[in-house]
Amino acid sequence: MILNNHNHKPSPEEAPATPAGGTLLRVAITQGDTNGIGYELILKTFADNGMFELCIPVVYGSAKVATYHRKTLGMEMNFHIIRSAEEAVPGRLNLVNCIEEEVKVELGTPTPEAGLAAFKALEQATADLQAGLADVLVTAPICKASIQSDAFRFAGHTEYLQDRLGNGAEALMILSNSLMRVALVTTHLPLQKVPGSLSQDVILQKIHLLHQSLRRDFLLPAPRIAVLGLNPHNGDGGVLGSEEQNTIRPAIEAAVAEEIQCFGPYPADGFFGAGLYRHFDAVLAMYHDQGLAPFKALSMDDGVNFTAGLPFVRTSPDHGTAFDIAGKGLASPDSFRQAIFTAIDVYRHRKADDEAHRDPLQKLYHEHREDSDRQRHIQADKTE
Amino acid sequence: MILNNHNHKPSPEEAPATPAGGTLLRVAITQGDTNGIGYELILKTFADNGMFELCIPVVYGSAKVATYHRKTLGMEMNFHIIRSAEEAVPGRLNLVNCIEEEVKVELGTPTPEAGLAAFKALEQATADLQAGLADVLVTAPICKASIQSDAFRFAGHTEYLQDRLGNGAEALMILSNSLMRVALVTTHLPLQKVPGSLSQDVILQKIHLLHQSLRRDFLLPAPRIAVLGLNPHNGDGGVLGSEEQNTIRPAIEAAVAEEIQCFGPYPADGFFGAGLYRHFDAVLAMYHDQGLAPFKALSMDDGVNFTAGLPFVRTSPDHGTAFDIAGKGLASPDSFRQAIFTAIDVYRHRKADDEAHRDPLQKLYHEHREDSDRQRHIQADKTE
Repeated sequence: MILNNHNHKPSPEEAPATPAGGTLLRVAITQGDTNGIGYELILKTFADNGMFELCIPVVYGSAKVATYHRKTLGMEMNFHIIRSAEEAVPGRLNLVNCIEEEVKVELGTPTPEAGLAAFKALEQATADLQAGLADVLVTAPICKASIQSDAFRFAGHTEYLQDRLGNGAEALMILSNSLMRVALVTTHLPLQKVPGSLSQDVILQKIHLLHQSLRRDFLLPAPRIAVLGLNPHNGDGGVLGSEEQNTIRPAIEAAVAEEIQCFGPYPADGFFGAGLYRHFDAVLAMYHDQGLAPFKALSMDDGVNFTAGLPFVRTSPDHGTAFDIAGKGLASPDSFRQAIFTAIDVYRHRKADDEAHRDPLQKLYHEHREDSDRQRHIQADKTE
Repeated sequence: MILNNHNHKPSPEEAPATPAGGTLLRVAITQGDTNGIGYELILKTFADNGMFELCIPVVYGSAKVATYHRKTLGMEMNFHIIRSAEEAVPGRLNLVNCIEEEVKVELGTPTPEAGLAAFKALEQATADLQAGLADVLVTAPICKASIQSDAFRFAGHTEYLQDRLGNGAEALMILSNSLMRVALVTTHLPLQKVPGSLSQDVILQKIHLLHQSLRRDFLLPAPRIAVLGLNPHNGDGGVLGSEEQNTIRPAIEAAVAEEIQCFGPYPADGFFGAGLYRHFDAVLAMYHDQGLAPFKALSMDDGVNFTAGLPFVRTSPDHGTAFDIAGKGLASPDSFRQAIFTAIDVYRHRKADDEAHRDPLQKLYHEHREDSDRQRHIQADKTE
């Protein structure tokens, strides 16, 4: 299965008109933890002028901290400091200065000050996304311990954004690289709580979310989904656990009864060992490390975390604050850059999908798409 | 860190004299599940004549089943059928016929009959290993559900061999490929039981076993060990679980106090994602899929499972019965062949280690080894 949507830099020519920025999408970018590699990722990504042909970046953070990082890294690029996203201009690295007070930078150290700065940037960017001042959101890594406060009591970005932007909808974490997409049934939970959190309903709901996202966000008309087991060797016929028989298999059968192409459960080690992910559009893992350890092991610095299921598009790199190399100029911007590409792709796919459902005949005559896809839009309209 | 002992075919010239077979080691090989790919692995491995310059293979199984598989696969090679391992000869694929009754082969299907045949072969091979009729044991894959009976109530080979050969010693499962070695604190346990099975003592004991094996079985004088956490993001400072703080970190500290080079805990996804395994001689994972899913994802058909900690050497390929491709000629023998190489390497390393400790001066003058290694044998003798 070839993942057309990955490692593909969207071309400026493809860009449809958007309300926010003419033909260029406005990408809201949070600074992340100010003691980590956030600004290094941003500066390195936009050191490539080609990026400005693709989008209008609007960074949310502190002008002083941004300058500190730029100088530490010895980079030339200047930020275009603005007070509101409305002042953002094409061709510049815009920065909405949303932190008035001084923020002391302690490279590589988790501090409450850096956590608070990360939170304020995230709050402003989320509000602007909701207000239509940005088209998509790309977040730099936060330190999950530093950011905790009375205002932020979440395990991570995904949970925060579900609460702030979800409007009751549930988020689904999908990781993608050039080889595969991996979605998670449970995300930031102690391992001890994972088995008790799984039920047929919960798993079926995640299958639905994943299926829907693959169709709309990735424009895959009939996606194939692989579901992993929970226990070693898939529970070995019950000898090593019964969740496969009692919970996971029934959820898969219910999805198949709804004509979703859903397969499994597969034992995680054998699945990744045999490269079975090549045969599927996405893999649904039961818990964080089961999906993410093999996913990251196989990533070539190009993993992207996409929050599906919400009305707004948000992506991030698949790595953390990298405190150990903060300020050293060693961070690779590849995953961050790919996160911007993916956010733009998903945004455009959603627009294309909406458009197709609004006026299918126009689409058929005006666009050159492959037959199966064309067929799909006809089908979709017939059945809805 | 280069894993010298992997993907290295032992040379016949290196072979020391052994009691069982002159300069050639006797390798006991079990047939595994008779409906799986066991005989295909064996036949393909010994289709290369070079293998007979390295060892005397003694297969334990059923002559009729072996012939059935040979014909199904259309292979020329003949077995040398014998009644006892004592009759084994160099240059032939010896087969101890230890199953008198008919065994019906149903390719790709788990049956109690195939499980019983696998068990009988394993029993005889284990007994012969104990009796000194073989030097090392290499097992073909079994179906863990089919083999269960009143006589076999174990989660797998590792647990069975610990019971039969351990003499009170505890076994440690170590997986190796050309990139890394991974050892497991818990092996065949339902995921639900994993957190409760971890304690500082249990983890420290596994660190000891791993450290000892790296020194003696792989001749690494001062091995570096990485220990993984249990929870996502290493528990994120307690937000996502406390085992890292309460159990795993104290075990690592205790090991370091004993001058073992032990590091961690590391979050599993970040560890494999950043390729940190390159900096260590082995990785200690807390549970089966945490270690094995990324390990197998990165294996190039060359993963080997080695049972450390026991007085006898046993290895196996890192894959299962592969029922889906049984009898089709599609199975790769690479992992199985590598298992034979690893068993021979470990056997020779143990002999070399024993010899060095018996008579260090002789070793120093008679062998050309690198200085650090020479130094190590002197040190070891001084301190013991």
